[in-house]
Amino acid sequence: MWEKLDIITNNHVEFKDVTGEVQQVVTRSRLPTGMCYLYVPHTTAAVLINENADPDVMADIAAGLERAVPFAAGYRHVEGNSAAHIKSVLVGQNATLFIENSRLVLGTWQGIFFAEFDGPRRRQLYVKITGD
Amino acid sequence: MWEKLDIITNNHVEFKDVTGEVQQVVTRSRLPTGMCYLYVPHTTAAVLINENADPDVMADIAAGLERAVPFAAGYRHVEGNSAAHIKSVLVGQNATLFIENSRLVLGTWQGIFFAEFDGPRRRQLYVKITGD
Amino acid sequence: MWEKLDIITNNHVEFKDVTGEVQQVVTRSRLPTGMCYLYVPHTTAAVLINENADPDVMADIAAGLERAVPFAAGYRHVEGNSAAHIKSVLVGQNATLFIENSRLVLGTWQGIFFAEFDGPRRRQLYVKITGD
Repeated sequence: MWEKLDIITNNHVEFKDVTGEVQQVVTRSRLPTGMCYLYVPHTTAAVLINENADPDVMADIAAGLERAVPFAAGYRHVEGNSAAHIKSVLVGQNATLFIENSRLVLGTWQGIFFAEFDGPRRRQLYVKITGD
Repeated sequence: MWEKLDIITNNHVEFKDVTGEVQQVVTRSRLPTGMCYLYVPHTTAAVLINENADPDVMADIAAGLERAVPFAAGYRHVEGNSAAHIKSVLVGQNATLFIENSRLVLGTWQGIFFAEFDGPRRRQLYVKITGD
Repeated sequence: MWEKLDIITNNHVEFKDVTGEVQQVVTRSRLPTGMCYLYVPHTTAAVLINENADPDVMADIAAGLERAVPFAAGYRHVEGNSAAHIKSVLVGQNATLFIENSRLVLGTWQGIFFAEFDGPRRRQLYVKITGD
């Protein structure tokens, strides 16, 4: 089974913690063990897994990505959001997680974040669960 | 089942739309729902999912990656293609897609691209399909 | 079935070839065909697949990542390892491989590397095997 989660972003760049929403899909599946596949159906957004304890980490990730791939750098695409496309490619559309005892298997400090690079927008995150 | 798709690239850096070829593998599998796993068996190429509408986006992605990881930057590897290895790592060897109604689940503006960073070359893309 | 592999890193940045250890998990599973999912439960480490022939390639990948995302760049996170978090996000927590004839399907020049960006540390790599 799979579901489409609705995500609303409020800023140009935003990393939104969606760990709880994804876990709810796992819980609804009633599957004790399996896989959880995340997929972002957008070309200027992505999904990432990183620290959910100190919000400065997310601010630093945004700043580090901006340093490597600046929004203002003379691109050709007329919509003016080329850096968002590049960041989307670098961070990626996929994450794949294990399910054990009906819970996502995550490291102690890990959360799942929807990464917006061209917001604010209405977005979706696709979540598919398969049993072992 | 899985297949090896032959890919021919014609430029040093090239993003080749392979959405149609991957969908054909899905169609040949006759599986109505499942997963589609893509794998690049090369160390200077990758697979990415991004906009297939405006070709300027792909040109900008190539330029943005070049800005972040320049081909000429004094590397040690004697073959002189170290930046291609780095780009391959950053963009990645994997993509994982859902199959629904015998079709790849993609966002409205998304296509699947084979990313060449050390061409022109003969390449392969591995495509595996599993049913739910 | 899945296993937690113990990884010990000895340097600040280190790419450790774990291909053999991952293949041993595949072998222990006794599954002739299937999928092998790798997951890094850390926020300053990652997993990558790239050349295992010339060690200069790994040195160049480390240098290229450092050029794109320098460790010293004025971050906010007080632990001082923000660049390690960013590199972890860019390289990624996942790899997904095919299994055929009880062997990982890898390209001729490919190996699997655990990527440490904030070592030396004791780490883990999660490996899950599913049959087709």
